[in-house]
Amino acid sequence: MKYSKLFGKTVKDVSQEIKLVSHKLLYQAGFIRESVAGRYYFLPLGIRVREKIVAIIEKHMNATGAQKLITPVLHPLELWEETNRTSSVGFELMTVKDQRGAAFALGGTAEEMMVDLVRKFNVSYKDLPFNIYQFSQKFRDELRARGGLLRVREFLMKDAYSFHADEKDFKEEYKKMGDTYTAIFNEIGLDTVVIESDNGYIGGDYCHEFVVESPAGESRFLMTEDRSYAAHEEVAVFKRDEMNPDEEILPLEVKDAPRGPTIADGVKLYDKPAWRQIKTVVYVVDDDEKVLVSLRGDLDVNEIKLKHVLQTTILRPATEDEIKELGSVVGFVSPLNLDLKKVGDLSLKTVKNFYTGADENQKDTLNVNYERDFTVDILDDIALPPDDCTTEDGKKLIEGHGIEVGNIFQLGTHYTDRMSGSVFTDQDGKEKPFYMGCYGIGIGRTLGTVVEMFHDDNGIIWPKAIAPYLVHIVSIGKDEKVIEEAEKLYEQLQEAGIDVLYDDRQESAGKKLNDADLMGIPLRLVMSNRTMEAGAVEWKLRAEKDAISVPLAEVMSKIQEFAQ
Amino acid sequence: MKYSKLFGKTVKDVSQEIKLVSHKLLYQAGFIRESVAGRYYFLPLGIRVREKIVAIIEKHMNATGAQKLITPVLHPLELWEETNRTSSVGFELMTVKDQRGAAFALGGTAEEMMVDLVRKFNVSYKDLPFNIYQFSQKFRDELRARGGLLRVREFLMKDAYSFHADEKDFKEEYKKMGDTYTAIFNEIGLDTVVIESDNGYIGGDYCHEFVVESPAGESRFLMTEDRSYAAHEEVAVFKRDEMNPDEEILPLEVKDAPRGPTIADGVKLYDKPAWRQIKTVVYVVDDDEKVLVSLRGDLDVNEIKLKHVLQTTILRPATEDEIKELGSVVGFVSPLNLDLKKVGDLSLKTVKNFYTGADENQKDTLNVNYERDFTVDILDDIALPPDDCTTEDGKKLIEGHGIEVGNIFQLGTHYTDRMSGSVFTDQDGKEKPFYMGCYGIGIGRTLGTVVEMFHDDNGIIWPKAIAPYLVHIVSIGKDEKVIEEAEKLYEQLQEAGIDVLYDDRQESAGKKLNDADLMGIPLRLVMSNRTMEAGAVEWKLRAEKDAISVPLAEVMSKIQEFAQ
Repeated sequence: MKYSKLFGKTVKDVSQEIKLVSHKLLYQAGFIRESVAGRYYFLPLGIRVREKIVAIIEKHMNATGAQKLITPVLHPLELWEETNRTSSVGFELMTVKDQRGAAFALGGTAEEMMVDLVRKFNVSYKDLPFNIYQFSQKFRDELRARGGLLRVREFLMKDAYSFHADEKDFKEEYKKMGDTYTAIFNEIGLDTVVIESDNGYIGGDYCHEFVVESPAGESRFLMTEDRSYAAHEEVAVFKRDEMNPDEEILPLEVKDAPRGPTIADGVKLYDKPAWRQIKTVVYVVDDDEKVLVSLRGDLDVNEIKLKHVLQTTILRPATEDEIKELGSVVGFVSPLNLDLKKVGDLSLKTVKNFYTGADENQKDTLNVNYERDFTVDILDDIALPPDDCTTEDGKKLIEGHGIEVGNIFQLGTHYTDRMSGSVFTDQDGKEKPFYMGCYGIGIGRTLGTVVEMFHDDNGIIWPKAIAPYLVHIVSIGKDEKVIEEAEKLYEQLQEAGIDVLYDDRQESAGKKLNDADLMGIPLRLVMSNRTMEAGAVEWKLRAEKDAISVPLAEVMSKIQEFAQ
Repeated sequence: MKYSKLFGKTVKDVSQEIKLVSHKLLYQAGFIRESVAGRYYFLPLGIRVREKIVAIIEKHMNATGAQKLITPVLHPLELWEETNRTSSVGFELMTVKDQRGAAFALGGTAEEMMVDLVRKFNVSYKDLPFNIYQFSQKFRDELRARGGLLRVREFLMKDAYSFHADEKDFKEEYKKMGDTYTAIFNEIGLDTVVIESDNGYIGGDYCHEFVVESPAGESRFLMTEDRSYAAHEEVAVFKRDEMNPDEEILPLEVKDAPRGPTIADGVKLYDKPAWRQIKTVVYVVDDDEKVLVSLRGDLDVNEIKLKHVLQTTILRPATEDEIKELGSVVGFVSPLNLDLKKVGDLSLKTVKNFYTGADENQKDTLNVNYERDFTVDILDDIALPPDDCTTEDGKKLIEGHGIEVGNIFQLGTHYTDRMSGSVFTDQDGKEKPFYMGCYGIGIGRTLGTVVEMFHDDNGIIWPKAIAPYLVHIVSIGKDEKVIEEAEKLYEQLQEAGIDVLYDDRQESAGKKLNDADLMGIPLRLVMSNRTMEAGAVEWKLRAEKDAISVPLAEVMSKIQEFAQ
């Protein structure tokens, strides 16, 4: 490509509203343009990078035996109604009606479409497992779009869906996909942390995010220093230490407690640490049942885990009036007296002689001990990790920030139980629902992340694997000999099948070199009167500081070596 | 690919509702599945063909210097309002609102999006011309979708848009694109007729369709036998012969005419051919002005041409009451008396002594002669070509039917006049609107057309250039030696980078050979006990009847030759 002909040249000025460095550089260097907030054009330079990312993903996916296909963008809304996702999805679904009144969802993810496709076939256990994937445009009606490609309303996504006879078979694919994702991001140039996370709106039990550590990311998580364990706050598992194992168990006692309703008020009254108290929250589950949720006073309820434990997606803390109706008082609710379903955190077993309310205003119960004085219906992990916690084996958990570029989900039979007829015939001749997983990568976000990670003050520094061009020839001055040699090299490289951009403009050296830095093509070759006199070109890698001189006669073979 | 692992196998039974042969074969052979009417999944086999078509188009487009980019699928509706296309498009636009109330069109074509992109840049005459294109999903809210890929509601389209300083420059690109389209379709295997057609909803003055002659097509057109001229009925230019040049001009006469209101009634009454009468239709233009439209009685009004002549997009014939209000009578309207704007067809000059109505019931005027007795405000070509007409130079026009697979449009400044700021700075320093063209190819329809053209009773016969695989290995029987050799050949071909499908199933020879015919891969290689004994494989081209025996030792080199 000759730069003089390229559609989408560099620009200097940037709107003050552009905050993210990846947004700024991709805009300035001519890779993207915003249509309206959260919706982007990919210009010729940008689409080249995007296609290289797509090709890498495709190569790795195909190597696993996954098969590419494509679904329509408009999904019949009745499919989303079959799985109840019209009301349950965590992202806002866009819907549209056609003139005959048929309703459609603009594809957000494609579980229903893939299941609907698969159930059109008579699938036998012999056909299993299979993994089918697509690259297709996805839509999210986000209220706020961030600048640039990191959080948008419309984007190209690689979404894969695997179908299995059972969980055992699925787990092999899940592991394979995890390894494949690591390999994909590595080839692109990104180092990812694999983070346990909540399955959220997609449904299913467990899933992992692939996160690139970056302050620009919206993903917060906890991990060990060696990254052997990493998880979102909402799913992180942490150790609950025994707080006072040697203390003697004392007799239960109810006392006046002239304090306010908070844990801090109790700390003040008794002058003892927060862990000494039981925190009990009344939750309203499914807009209906009231549940008592108790945990150690220094911890907070993890509603995500609580939802899993209660097998619901809908819960909220009760109001003051609702608590009064139960016969208790805000700030003095205890797990001892009310006749409700009870859920407790594992931490209830780590303290002797708890203090807690007595379901009366300004009365507390002292020396409460789990099992001696109360039990719960469900004792499980329902707490958010506190600061300075550790894994079960004692490794310190530290906070990380990053950009989620991919994720893999266990879906189980969440979809196939709900969509009738999505079954295979098993060896025993019986019809069984498919066991499923799904696996996504956001292409644009991956592209933006690369720029967040690889740039300097002068511009982008593309990793070779996804650079829009490998070589950037810059001719300087009007000398015909220089231009002739530059043209010659440009043609030789094209013939050799090497992606080359040739800046053939009659612009100042400064302008052309600045533009080259901004665009970030890995190898810059400058040809000028000065280099010609030495029978050489100036060879400079974008990622390195210094240039070297390479004799013209050697430059082609050296480039071919670089291209490997 | 091993067929045992392929997602989307052949099926035998087809719904009675599937009428088109391309629909039937693509369904049976496992290339596509319908989601809902007019919206299709492309299965692994189908997407391979689609991608080969895309690659061919891209190669040819890039060779012309056109540059690929991509726009969002959702187009801000205000852009379509700028050009007034929200009300004027000939296809039904789908629109959607997001939760913040912003309205979008689901991309039907992308003129506005491309112009909006281009006007974000400061374009100088030095940057012109350029041609930018994309492959993107398009939406048409068709009331009726035909089966299969020939007329759908959602499809992948290659749409290109060129920007020029003036019409002269545009015409070069228009010619280049026309030649490129012919080359693209030739490489795919399709022979196209280039047909003049109406510009319709896209706007602009002239355009051409690329049509593959087929009875399955919805496109009707007229062409000379040598195809040097081809045009849609609505735009076809034809010769109007002098009907009675030697007749003496007679004096005007008004007479009682005991006849019905039709031309046929006049023919009956006077026992003279229809051309002897003037047909006059009252049109209501732009819901407002009434216009008299007259032409020779054997011809019909061409409303498309009439719209162009009247520079409107909205007209309809007047009602009986409206004609009465004007002081005339249906069936007896004449171009002589009413004080209205008058449009006449060129054919009015080809007859001496016309008969026509007298604007009174059952009264006719005889011996009416153009110029002596009346003239019109606009005399132009506003007639549909009759049966058995010829071009101006006397070549017979015959009717053709076909499938439109591509089109090229002159847009002029239709869009850039309406979208403020879509200008370039010319040599004289002045801002001028871009002169534009646009160029589309429907990918799915092209794929469907190939199947319409290339099949036999047993299945599809893919042209080599776009076949999903080049080679189809079929092993027959359970003999280990056969299977081992088949596997070996399969691996050799994969290593050589040749697209190969290997039917490794334990199925009967009949089933496997029938499936091979149905899928239509160009080269079938059968390996069985019998062929192994001869140290050979059975080599059969799908497009040919007979098989030959090729020694195993020669088969690789022969395939490589075939692959060229």
